[in-house]
Amino acid sequence: MKSTMMDVPLLIPEILERTRHFFAEREIVSLLVAGRDEQGQPVPQAHRTTYGQVADRALRLASALTAAGVQPGERVATLAVNSFRHLEAYLGIPSMGGVLHTVNIRLHPDQVCWIINDAEDKVLLIENLFAALIPTIQAGCPSIEKIVVLGPLPQPIPGVDDYDAWIMSHQPQERYPEMQETDAAGMCYTSGTTGNPKAVTYSHRSTLLHSLASAPKDALNVGQEDSVLPIVPMFHVNAWGLPYTCALYGAKMVFAGAFSDGPTLAKLMQDEGVTITAGVPTIWMGLLAELDRAQQAGEPYHLPLERLVVGGSAAPEALIRAFWERHQLKLVQAWGMTETHPLGTTSTTPPGVAFDSDEGFELAAKQGVAVPLVQLELLGDNGDKLPHDGKSMGRLIARGPWVAGSYYKNTGQSNFLEIDGQEWFDTGDIATLDARGFMHIQDRAKDLIKSGGEWISSVDLENALMAHPAVSQAAVIAMPDPKWDERPLAVLVLREGQSAPPHDELTDFLAPKFAKWWLPDAYEVVEAIPIGATGKFLKRELREQFKEKVAAGTATR
Amino acid sequence: MKSTMMDVPLLIPEILERTRHFFAEREIVSLLVAGRDEQGQPVPQAHRTTYGQVADRALRLASALTAAGVQPGERVATLAVNSFRHLEAYLGIPSMGGVLHTVNIRLHPDQVCWIINDAEDKVLLIENLFAALIPTIQAGCPSIEKIVVLGPLPQPIPGVDDYDAWIMSHQPQERYPEMQETDAAGMCYTSGTTGNPKAVTYSHRSTLLHSLASAPKDALNVGQEDSVLPIVPMFHVNAWGLPYTCALYGAKMVFAGAFSDGPTLAKLMQDEGVTITAGVPTIWMGLLAELDRAQQAGEPYHLPLERLVVGGSAAPEALIRAFWERHQLKLVQAWGMTETHPLGTTSTTPPGVAFDSDEGFELAAKQGVAVPLVQLELLGDNGDKLPHDGKSMGRLIARGPWVAGSYYKNTGQSNFLEIDGQEWFDTGDIATLDARGFMHIQDRAKDLIKSGGEWISSVDLENALMAHPAVSQAAVIAMPDPKWDERPLAVLVLREGQSAPPHDELTDFLAPKFAKWWLPDAYEVVEAIPIGATGKFLKRELREQFKEKVAAGTATR
Repeated sequence: MKSTMMDVPLLIPEILERTRHFFAEREIVSLLVAGRDEQGQPVPQAHRTTYGQVADRALRLASALTAAGVQPGERVATLAVNSFRHLEAYLGIPSMGGVLHTVNIRLHPDQVCWIINDAEDKVLLIENLFAALIPTIQAGCPSIEKIVVLGPLPQPIPGVDDYDAWIMSHQPQERYPEMQETDAAGMCYTSGTTGNPKAVTYSHRSTLLHSLASAPKDALNVGQEDSVLPIVPMFHVNAWGLPYTCALYGAKMVFAGAFSDGPTLAKLMQDEGVTITAGVPTIWMGLLAELDRAQQAGEPYHLPLERLVVGGSAAPEALIRAFWERHQLKLVQAWGMTETHPLGTTSTTPPGVAFDSDEGFELAAKQGVAVPLVQLELLGDNGDKLPHDGKSMGRLIARGPWVAGSYYKNTGQSNFLEIDGQEWFDTGDIATLDARGFMHIQDRAKDLIKSGGEWISSVDLENALMAHPAVSQAAVIAMPDPKWDERPLAVLVLREGQSAPPHDELTDFLAPKFAKWWLPDAYEVVEAIPIGATGKFLKRELREQFKEKVAAGTATR
Repeated sequence: MKSTMMDVPLLIPEILERTRHFFAEREIVSLLVAGRDEQGQPVPQAHRTTYGQVADRALRLASALTAAGVQPGERVATLAVNSFRHLEAYLGIPSMGGVLHTVNIRLHPDQVCWIINDAEDKVLLIENLFAALIPTIQAGCPSIEKIVVLGPLPQPIPGVDDYDAWIMSHQPQERYPEMQETDAAGMCYTSGTTGNPKAVTYSHRSTLLHSLASAPKDALNVGQEDSVLPIVPMFHVNAWGLPYTCALYGAKMVFAGAFSDGPTLAKLMQDEGVTITAGVPTIWMGLLAELDRAQQAGEPYHLPLERLVVGGSAAPEALIRAFWERHQLKLVQAWGMTETHPLGTTSTTPPGVAFDSDEGFELAAKQGVAVPLVQLELLGDNGDKLPHDGKSMGRLIARGPWVAGSYYKNTGQSNFLEIDGQEWFDTGDIATLDARGFMHIQDRAKDLIKSGGEWISSVDLENALMAHPAVSQAAVIAMPDPKWDERPLAVLVLREGQSAPPHDELTDFLAPKFAKWWLPDAYEVVEAIPIGATGKFLKRELREQFKEKVAAGTATR
């Protein structure tokens, strides 16, 4: 028996229409680069507009793309920072049936071209800051028929349009084309460290469902009263979906553009009354240093932040404690991937547990509980599902209406599996799940350390090491070992002005928290840990770097 | 171009699985009738269980129904108060593919039978409190193959099962049947005041989407930390969807069973730490009286309520002000209908407006802004869409994935229309919409007063009259008038101990707020205003009652 409900598809135009009709006066603030200071550093200047203006311009962009010959289902690429213009692309491209393809600006130009060619992008919207890339793209990307520059250029570039002039020369689109909710609306390439990048295409349906699931207080807590600053880039899994979630709910949006340093962010949050912000742990370390500095200088910031969402990689418990104990600010961990749109879990404290208790901090440092409609399971070596006992470590698999079921062009088929007739995505993470549903990532499968047949969680060791007063960053990697197969090596970056703690001191520091055989055999101090395009440690490079040293027996013991 | 996201349907079993896995220890409290006091009034006793227990029993119910021969798509009726057993039916029936048909216990037995026969219900779960109805149903409802009684009976009834014994004799269902998200999951009859009742069947998809849309703070604000008391009955539009929303998010649920008096509710809210509650204005008037009494007696309640959701009919501004000013409690208005699942709008104060300002209270007394995915428009007499200017009154039409597109058996086709190829539901309400999206119901179309060719809003007059210190309830109805076609007559119920204010005093009281021609021509004082099965004024009856008096010229002027 079918229900009698209307068949109304879930479409991104619904988000655009809400911003136009209900939130037209709500502000959108973007830091743009106003020039350079004496050191050549960019100087920020706040640009102010409204959802009403953004919606009008998004509909002009839709008309302009149609006039440029973009057909429904064709890809329009962006190479852009977080700003109101990027938001217009988020709303306008899917509203004319196009697919928003956000390209990672941190990739090598060859990779950018490879990705644009693989996606067969037809139009490119590129930030003026990256204009130097244009000749490379013109030469190397034959599918691109039109390049449009976001923001003013010192001088015109031949064959390239100015975005503002281009869209303003078109009337706002009056009718949305026919769409189905399963049509592609967005496209994102993973930062695959092996092989070529693989693309996920988000649908209108998955985008709307992800926005609905993101808003409640047990997730990201977005509402019309909020002022939201996504520091996570809009080219990285849709800035965790926040541009769509905020537009759907009418939250003020604040964009930091090319800026991510602690002082600029702290001032921006204070000036714009930011209540919710989202970023990777590195960003929050920078912010924490600035908050500490200001407090010690007797000029503390006054931040109305309700929560700082942290994701991308695990936030160490020490960082969560530091924000709370020194600044009464709450870090809420979230977990996800490009393939999960990304919201998979959030780590809000369950009833009966105080956030600022030991148990509360311990839970806050886990990845958290699956949001509604996302299912998580653990697979053992033999492919059986493992118990949710908080101890059994297994390959984390995910399923849900905003989880990828394949990659574009059907690459990477081995990441998808079928269990009892249901599709699942293999995250490549090794995790535990407990009885309350708390998921705790132990490692990337490829970064796992297997010592004497047993797994050691590098993530747990790293988080513990980062609580040591001398340690700023820690990466624990597997080193080949003749007896145990693999043994952990800890690579450390020290805090400013600190000297390397002796091996025994670090061992004593870790010993109360871990089994003896988990403790690193060696510690190495480096200036910096190599970081990939999405801000994660490149452990593969570290393993290469230290392999020979270990083989030669010269690693620090 | 299709997206690469998984095809995962939105199904109620997802809700059940979350309660089992993440919220197993979370409490469910139900007031049951423990006996009768000396006046013959029922005495409440709190029953305590958990989501884990409820989920287990819901899966046993699923098995029991399958064993009883219920096929996917067949209807299972409930005639029950709000309690954990009714929640088990909510979760268990759709999880075996059945359709939960919640029958209104306030209907006349003949109507109950008519509805059961129309729905062709196969099994009936009936509360022990209503056991007296069983012989009527056995005699009059041939489709019912099995009757099961919820709660203990003083003595067995032939041919009737005890619910607890029945479900516990079955093992929990181990696999969910194949389902599509558009399959029917729930069924609800409207309280149509003309013609036979008409049924809406909710789908798994509409139920899940409605739950996701209900949780954010701009809607009902439900999360795992909350304790939620839906006083609105579970037989009335799924208690506004709260049982599903709370189960999806793991909120503690509190059920008042057969109790709805102010003192019992106030004590229950205090004892169970209720943070969110929902009911019709009449319930809140009773609660307000009890809170006032306790405060004046120097023994105020301590209620951790974050909001009281009010719907079903418009809450007068005076009521919203009274709760805030006397008890610092926030009433949040919501609007919806059986045909809208019901959540259509919520009246949360927009940014920049303080709830306790004059503008805040005025907005709070409107029905509010459409929640995401619900679209509202106004139609003029000629079928054109009217402007959203806060002044133009038109027929309110609604569209969205949880709005009915037809009735069961295709009755009432005239309530549905097609505009530009899109389906819309005609709510039968006359409303305004303003530039910020605030919808304000002026009247039911059938209760409209048209005087000299212009519309007068009975709802506005009623709300204004209810702010008069002598007036407890007010209903304004259209009376035939030889000159103006229709003129308003106000029917008043006085507060205890108050005498009827003179006509001129009421006119002077209303005059500053309304055009002169809106003011009622006459006032009539009655003991009580007739109320229908869903708690709304039966204006049709009032019009009948006063028609002759007006015609004879004997109505009070």
